[in-house]
Amino acid sequence: MYRTHTCGELRATHSGNQVTLAGWVQTVRKFGAITFVDLRDRYGITQLLFGEDLNKEFDENPLGREFVLQATGTVNERSNKNPNIPTGDIEINVTSFKILNKSAVPPFTIQDDTDGGDDLRMKYRFLDLRRNAVKRNLELRYAVNRAARNYLHHQGFMDIETPFLIKSTPEGARDFVVPSRMNPGQFYALPQSPQTFKQLLMVSGYDRYYQIVKCFRDEDLRADRQPEFTQIDCEMAFVEQEDILSMFEGLIKSVFKEVKNIDYTEAVERMTWEDAMWNFGNDKPDIRFGMKLLNLKKPASVYTSKQGQSALIDGADFKVFDEAETVIAIAVPGCSEYSRKQTDELTEWVKRPQIGMKGLVFIKCNTDGTYKSSVDKFYSEEKLKAIADAADAKAGDLVLILAGAEERTRKAVSELRLEMGKRLGLRKDDEFRLLWVLDFPLFEYDEEGNRWVARHHPFTSPKPSQIETMINNNPVIENAAEYLNHPYANIKANAYDMVLNGNEIGGGSIRIYQRELQEKMFAALGMDEEEQLHKFGFLLGAFEYGAPPHGGIAFGFDRLCAILGGSESIRDFIAFPKNNSGRDVMLDAPATIDEKQFEELQIKLNLK
Amino acid sequence: MYRTHTCGELRATHSGNQVTLAGWVQTVRKFGAITFVDLRDRYGITQLLFGEDLNKEFDENPLGREFVLQATGTVNERSNKNPNIPTGDIEINVTSFKILNKSAVPPFTIQDDTDGGDDLRMKYRFLDLRRNAVKRNLELRYAVNRAARNYLHHQGFMDIETPFLIKSTPEGARDFVVPSRMNPGQFYALPQSPQTFKQLLMVSGYDRYYQIVKCFRDEDLRADRQPEFTQIDCEMAFVEQEDILSMFEGLIKSVFKEVKNIDYTEAVERMTWEDAMWNFGNDKPDIRFGMKLLNLKKPASVYTSKQGQSALIDGADFKVFDEAETVIAIAVPGCSEYSRKQTDELTEWVKRPQIGMKGLVFIKCNTDGTYKSSVDKFYSEEKLKAIADAADAKAGDLVLILAGAEERTRKAVSELRLEMGKRLGLRKDDEFRLLWVLDFPLFEYDEEGNRWVARHHPFTSPKPSQIETMINNNPVIENAAEYLNHPYANIKANAYDMVLNGNEIGGGSIRIYQRELQEKMFAALGMDEEEQLHKFGFLLGAFEYGAPPHGGIAFGFDRLCAILGGSESIRDFIAFPKNNSGRDVMLDAPATIDEKQFEELQIKLNLK
Repeated sequence: MYRTHTCGELRATHSGNQVTLAGWVQTVRKFGAITFVDLRDRYGITQLLFGEDLNKEFDENPLGREFVLQATGTVNERSNKNPNIPTGDIEINVTSFKILNKSAVPPFTIQDDTDGGDDLRMKYRFLDLRRNAVKRNLELRYAVNRAARNYLHHQGFMDIETPFLIKSTPEGARDFVVPSRMNPGQFYALPQSPQTFKQLLMVSGYDRYYQIVKCFRDEDLRADRQPEFTQIDCEMAFVEQEDILSMFEGLIKSVFKEVKNIDYTEAVERMTWEDAMWNFGNDKPDIRFGMKLLNLKKPASVYTSKQGQSALIDGADFKVFDEAETVIAIAVPGCSEYSRKQTDELTEWVKRPQIGMKGLVFIKCNTDGTYKSSVDKFYSEEKLKAIADAADAKAGDLVLILAGAEERTRKAVSELRLEMGKRLGLRKDDEFRLLWVLDFPLFEYDEEGNRWVARHHPFTSPKPSQIETMINNNPVIENAAEYLNHPYANIKANAYDMVLNGNEIGGGSIRIYQRELQEKMFAALGMDEEEQLHKFGFLLGAFEYGAPPHGGIAFGFDRLCAILGGSESIRDFIAFPKNNSGRDVMLDAPATIDEKQFEELQIKLNLK
Repeated sequence: MYRTHTCGELRATHSGNQVTLAGWVQTVRKFGAITFVDLRDRYGITQLLFGEDLNKEFDENPLGREFVLQATGTVNERSNKNPNIPTGDIEINVTSFKILNKSAVPPFTIQDDTDGGDDLRMKYRFLDLRRNAVKRNLELRYAVNRAARNYLHHQGFMDIETPFLIKSTPEGARDFVVPSRMNPGQFYALPQSPQTFKQLLMVSGYDRYYQIVKCFRDEDLRADRQPEFTQIDCEMAFVEQEDILSMFEGLIKSVFKEVKNIDYTEAVERMTWEDAMWNFGNDKPDIRFGMKLLNLKKPASVYTSKQGQSALIDGADFKVFDEAETVIAIAVPGCSEYSRKQTDELTEWVKRPQIGMKGLVFIKCNTDGTYKSSVDKFYSEEKLKAIADAADAKAGDLVLILAGAEERTRKAVSELRLEMGKRLGLRKDDEFRLLWVLDFPLFEYDEEGNRWVARHHPFTSPKPSQIETMINNNPVIENAAEYLNHPYANIKANAYDMVLNGNEIGGGSIRIYQRELQEKMFAALGMDEEEQLHKFGFLLGAFEYGAPPHGGIAFGFDRLCAILGGSESIRDFIAFPKNNSGRDVMLDAPATIDEKQFEELQIKLNLK
């Protein structure tokens, strides 16, 4: 060992001990004939004191930042203590030292508030990883990993590894493929998830499986996506939805406790997909704050159990509302005194292309009990009050109303709600609110392809009461525009998403385990029998030999860590992430390969 | 939940309890009006008793093997107990049941001694996995996984995930490559190991890293290789070889204790590579038994510290020995009375193409003190005795002697020793003997390519005392035939292999951490500066910024599990293995991909 102790463990009680430390030079401070060096390692920082004799050696061989240093000396209690670091009571009076390795001047400072930009830090990721801020993230990641494994182990789950070189069965996302040299002309695919394997393990009787496992999707990368990402992947047999929910809220609560020391004792809230869309405008609502949506108009036939409140706006001859498919209001607390400049800025905000609305209607619920609106000429104060009351606005609140086509408007009002929540400080990093979203539609309809698409994935079971509906109806639709009238449009999935602070951190479902139903599902997705057998013959075959009822869930491990770390970026929680073009700029990968590799793989480029 | 208990947990103390079980029908036994069913799940087997009423239902819907059954009833203490299974004291008097899923007749029996051949079982792997023998293997694998993680965690190691989509830098083994759609014409590679990443993590200061991680090698698959395999991958900073050895024998001892309840308290033996080759004929000797090699001739200049015993055979005018480069004997205990038929069979055994020797000389050390040999006409009994004594043969032993070219002969005698050890029952599955093999040569010489090859890998450091030799000599050799005279031929690596029962279960090294030395290594391997920078620029760059001394090890997780499970086949310890052509016969992967995928990836086939 190059050291007797780490740079984080010495205290005043060690005074007088002879010790050897090894680490990196964080700072060098010369005071006349003596030099102070802060020596850093993974565990902390310790101050080294080099007296006159040793100091001279620095004249010939000056120390620099990030040099690797081994130093032996005596632990001294400091007269001038530093209460900011755990080792601040002591310093090492160095008697001998050795420079283990030199360092060029780093391209950015190794500090929490580094001067390095994103690109530079990614190129020199090995230096970026030295920064405390990044180290804390990876430590948190490991703590989550450990806590999840411990919980699952104690619940009887087994970690079983599934293969990475599998078969390409593109459904939804694109596969990464791997040419097989030994089977020329054929390709493996990298798994988008171990979905079918974990189901096979249930068929095999391993009734509680888990894995913390890399998955791969070749998608165009949006801001915070990675081509390779990690899942906590779980599956159980002989369970119903309720068993899964309770097992896995247990998992997350256990992670909260172990990693953040948070006792999340309250029950996890539950919400149907329809309620989530109706009341929050999206399927992963952030329930740390209110501002529920007031649906002033109900769009055609999507929300079967809901009633809009169009009486509040009808008959005013306000064309914008009258002609809109959807009109939705939210009450923003405490903003009634927004200036013209502020309401104009909000209007511009909703008109940005990312939001895409044509305008914004507001009602100020003044603290004196009066109401003032941008549509005063259409609505009397009494009517404004009625709308504001329905939106649950109090005196001092600002009601914001958007109108337009259903999908865009609902999405816009959801974004607006989140934005206002953020601006008002209602979305606190250190507050954690879990939510189960349930009863998703089983299918979406792809009007272009004129076929049903599985909202979750093709292995998700419908609600037990709707299995008959699924089996007994022909999925084919003659007139795509009328898909909402097809019985499949109302089939709900036995699926569930776990939402944390407005982020989907996990999702899963009770699976189909009957061959007939699975075939019906594949058929609904437009797969003929030949394609079904080619792609999923092994699974359909497995269902012939005693498949048990089963279900599971997968958590986005990167995302979960990011949220627990109070960050919005998963990249900060991945040791070696890729950029938005899927490149590792440190390695400079992907890259060209040798001619010999092309020959052996029997492929060639076909660049456009 | 479909069950209140598993099929493994009910005991006589549960008598009278109302319970519900769910599982698979192992056997159905009809006795007149009643039926006994053995219901199986991951946890065990419980006997179900169906009385007259329920029994009738089977007439219409007969139960079959592997049906999935849910049964509710009362726990009864059996009069006729079965002491062979933990639940043998009870049975369930079934009051109601439900067939959760039917099963076709399985293509082989789900039993330890199944009637299914290898191919059939691989095709229906999901059924094969139901067999107890396979389940025990996967349970053992998980136990090893868990034990390793716990040990490493408590030693301060952090699990840090490294990327799977990296850069192709083929050195030795072939990479699997992945075309990048977003970067047309470029490819990722799948990692052969996280080697460079774990070294970067040391540069980053994470001084104790581990991962249980999939690795990939596109090699022609020998009997017991897989294109994807799992490593326990570890690295430490600020350590010397001794620190690594003690840390990781601790790991394996901890696994022995947790998984097999074996207290491996004795010190792990150590042996230099030269001793291993000299005394056992290979670099991973099985030291569960003796039969050390007697080197009757020393080959030219390989074993620098050794002396052969050619005086024992010289001057007899026996051409076979006189003309051979190498002559090696072993003493096989207790076999002096082998018949002519038996010695002939051994002679045939060594003449097989896999062994490739021309013949076998033997000396019988008879129990009456006489010696009898196949070369009596060249060697007097006195000389035979001298050879036998030098081989450490006792009365009753059989000395076997092989002669020929060094490499082939040494390998052959090693194989012969292992074969005789096996035949004599000296290689016991339940005996575990660990061994460190140390001081490997740093280089091998590739006479064809006329260049040095790193025996371990290009990141392995030479012994500290030989760094100067490496730096100060030009690696280029004009005359390849004289490579043994080059100073590089005698450089020993700071590397170590852990051997268990004759299998290399782990290997590692102290790494190079100085840019100059690393460049010298790359140059020795025939890489010019441009190639060095293209392939390993990031690593050379990292060594500029304060790289600490570091080293590590990687264990072959599949192999380790197989040996602990008393098996020679890693395939038995992998849930979904591939066959010798790299195929997953269950999935039927690899397979062709769609035209659209080719187009998007901008590649095409170029089949020969």
